[in-house]
Amino acid sequence: MQNSSTLSRTETWRLLLLVGAGLGVLVNTFQGDGAPLIASIALTCISFAVAYSMIRWLGPVFIKAGLKGKDMAKPRKPEIPETMGAVCAVVYLLSLIVFIPFAFYKDIVAATSGGGNRDVVIEDQHIEMGRYLHRFPHGKLASYLSGLLSLQCIVILGIGDDLLDIRWRHKVLIPAFSAIPMLIVYFVDFGVTHVVVPVPLQAYLGAFIDLGWLYYMYMAAVAIFCPNAINMFAGINGIEVAQSLVIAVQLLFNDALYLAPVTPYPNPATDSHLFSIYFLLPFIGVSAALLCHNWYPSKVFVGDTYCYFAGMVFAVVGILGHFSKTLLLLFVPQIFNFLYSTPQLFHIIPCPRHRLPKFNAATGLLETSVTEWTVPPSPLVALALEILHKLRLVRVVKNEGGQIIESTNLTILNLWLVWMGPMREDTLAWHMVGVQTVCGLVGLFVRHRLALLVFNTDNLSFQSMA
Amino acid sequence: MQNSSTLSRTETWRLLLLVGAGLGVLVNTFQGDGAPLIASIALTCISFAVAYSMIRWLGPVFIKAGLKGKDMAKPRKPEIPETMGAVCAVVYLLSLIVFIPFAFYKDIVAATSGGGNRDVVIEDQHIEMGRYLHRFPHGKLASYLSGLLSLQCIVILGIGDDLLDIRWRHKVLIPAFSAIPMLIVYFVDFGVTHVVVPVPLQAYLGAFIDLGWLYYMYMAAVAIFCPNAINMFAGINGIEVAQSLVIAVQLLFNDALYLAPVTPYPNPATDSHLFSIYFLLPFIGVSAALLCHNWYPSKVFVGDTYCYFAGMVFAVVGILGHFSKTLLLLFVPQIFNFLYSTPQLFHIIPCPRHRLPKFNAATGLLETSVTEWTVPPSPLVALALEILHKLRLVRVVKNEGGQIIESTNLTILNLWLVWMGPMREDTLAWHMVGVQTVCGLVGLFVRHRLALLVFNTDNLSFQSMA
Repeated sequence: MQNSSTLSRTETWRLLLLVGAGLGVLVNTFQGDGAPLIASIALTCISFAVAYSMIRWLGPVFIKAGLKGKDMAKPRKPEIPETMGAVCAVVYLLSLIVFIPFAFYKDIVAATSGGGNRDVVIEDQHIEMGRYLHRFPHGKLASYLSGLLSLQCIVILGIGDDLLDIRWRHKVLIPAFSAIPMLIVYFVDFGVTHVVVPVPLQAYLGAFIDLGWLYYMYMAAVAIFCPNAINMFAGINGIEVAQSLVIAVQLLFNDALYLAPVTPYPNPATDSHLFSIYFLLPFIGVSAALLCHNWYPSKVFVGDTYCYFAGMVFAVVGILGHFSKTLLLLFVPQIFNFLYSTPQLFHIIPCPRHRLPKFNAATGLLETSVTEWTVPPSPLVALALEILHKLRLVRVVKNEGGQIIESTNLTILNLWLVWMGPMREDTLAWHMVGVQTVCGLVGLFVRHRLALLVFNTDNLSFQSMA
Repeated sequence: MQNSSTLSRTETWRLLLLVGAGLGVLVNTFQGDGAPLIASIALTCISFAVAYSMIRWLGPVFIKAGLKGKDMAKPRKPEIPETMGAVCAVVYLLSLIVFIPFAFYKDIVAATSGGGNRDVVIEDQHIEMGRYLHRFPHGKLASYLSGLLSLQCIVILGIGDDLLDIRWRHKVLIPAFSAIPMLIVYFVDFGVTHVVVPVPLQAYLGAFIDLGWLYYMYMAAVAIFCPNAINMFAGINGIEVAQSLVIAVQLLFNDALYLAPVTPYPNPATDSHLFSIYFLLPFIGVSAALLCHNWYPSKVFVGDTYCYFAGMVFAVVGILGHFSKTLLLLFVPQIFNFLYSTPQLFHIIPCPRHRLPKFNAATGLLETSVTEWTVPPSPLVALALEILHKLRLVRVVKNEGGQIIESTNLTILNLWLVWMGPMREDTLAWHMVGVQTVCGLVGLFVRHRLALLVFNTDNLSFQSMA
């Protein structure tokens, strides 16, 4: 039998081939005109291979260090390494750092007079030529670095959370702290806080409205929401990584729309969406590597670190790429899960430590987990639960006296099991991937088609400019 | 008896007072002209208070998470929390991030035409007025952020090291990876790689020489050396933090020379040294807080994280402040310790896992620790050890046959004990603080007085311009 912490011969050769191809493309890219998009794809392949191998190799080291957990939804409850998301995140961060000279290279060589003499700067217009250069002006560097800083912050605090078992109400603040570098650099570097007003309201508010510090509150809220939302939509093998991958691929698809030949060029949003692509591609690489180990039956757990990190990647691209509203359209299942959970989060309904579906060892299937009402609910809560039960949004069990003795936990996973009945863990994960995909596609359709009903122009501008 | 994880009433009031004063100054600073130097001092006070409290509060949490170690140089070998440097580092990073708008604030308000409209930029010259503005042009932001990125990198990897017990030959690479963001941004952002040639060589090489990629190798070497050097000069209570504090204060003194009224203004090096001050002040704050808990008898250990982090702070200010040679002059004890250790590092002399001085429970004093020669040394090594013994640079013990059976471990702490005889742990720590201080002061004297013998002008320019 193959050792669980080494790569098989086939795996080794495939990964080496991938790294070799990536490095080849990378060297070629750097020598020539330096197309950053190609370089980013090459780095993505390399990141995948490195993350894949590191996760495999570090398994026993993590277990030895006490970073391990029991998989409760398996007959034998095996103990497997925990917090592997940290490995992903470190590989991802290094790949984004190594990418810097590819994204900003042209500026040093062509835009300065040489010898580090930055006084004499040729204007940007002289350099940016042609549609497919895909490179950023130097001024975007601070913005890129601030995104990186926020991501590193959340990795540090996420690891702290995984290690120290921080209390729930302190956990929520982790993304808030991590958002600070991004918001501060936004403030210092750019500081645009006015937004376009929807057409029906323009008569009252004008075409633009300056939200001022409210805009910062909004950005902070997005940055706090995304990581916590992904962390909350967890509990079965592979679900954290799979939902993140679906969101990332759909964001990438949305970005690609702005670069496709059908879109008029130059488009003011091109740079922002390139920015987003460069952050998303390596994320997809390392997440795919993690999913290979984390999909049912899991060989490793991802830890809160991964959930925070993934959510922060989305917040960074949404905020710095200026499409946070579109981003939220792809978070519909997470938003639903959060709203649906609120009665338990605010302890209107008792909240056990873990709300994940329950494994039935006899059938091998997952069933809904329940809250047991040791003290019967107040009449108001009982009424609300009755109504939700009628609407099939929760399932309650009563004793012979008609009193509620248990109700299903309020998570989207349990709700799905209420609707669909018990199912295998991997089937449930696949269903959730389906839900995420369908919701996301509807969201993108709304964004690009229906938004024209309330805004003058889609910034993609198929209609208005093509 | 006072609980070891809570603050006493006196401590609470003092810290609250400190935070209150700091916040007051900060708010005032931000409202008025915004003097960043004052803000930095205020943030330093706040960082001290926060780090001091957090270290105290988190003790039991760290122990519960398995982050603990035994203090072998105490009669009872108490178990105390480990890796507390990570707490320091996080407080430090947050304070540097919060400081960004103070250092770069003027640019947004005065240097842009408002409303986030960054197209119309008033030239820097129009804004920088007066000697004591102490603010950076916007272009320095990327450099500041890259320093932060490198520090965050080393904190992430340092925590990984403390947790996972990484092998020695992999450990050395941790600072190398962490230096990447700083070097890459240096490359993209600035890229100056020429250095001034000493006068005696100018006839052959010209006034400047462009080192090209060699300069990057040099910077990487500095960034790898500093963290490892501090990590190597460890082993007794408080020594890691105390040496770092001495170096930081001396660097601060050196920086202050460039801002003092005796120095002509504008001086090309002023900005670089302000940069250094802004990075060093909060470092001194959090390190002082850590030292309060880590000085003999230690209540907490600092972990490799602190050593790496401290070394990287010095590497960042040395490299981005362009005074890496001066920096190395303050590292003389560390350089000596490293060179002195090399025979053991390269296994010419056997190297036990730990080389710290040995605690003698009978006397309560520290004594030299020794390498035992189970196999007698080769004639060449034996001869070298004999000579070093004669020079009092090592102490060997021979058996009746004249063969070496043990020799003292090659660290500066053991050497000092060879010279001075056994002593209490805190006395040894104080002696080392003295050594570090004296060496540093000599180094600074050399830098500012004797350097004029080989260079045309000290960039402090007391003589040439005043």
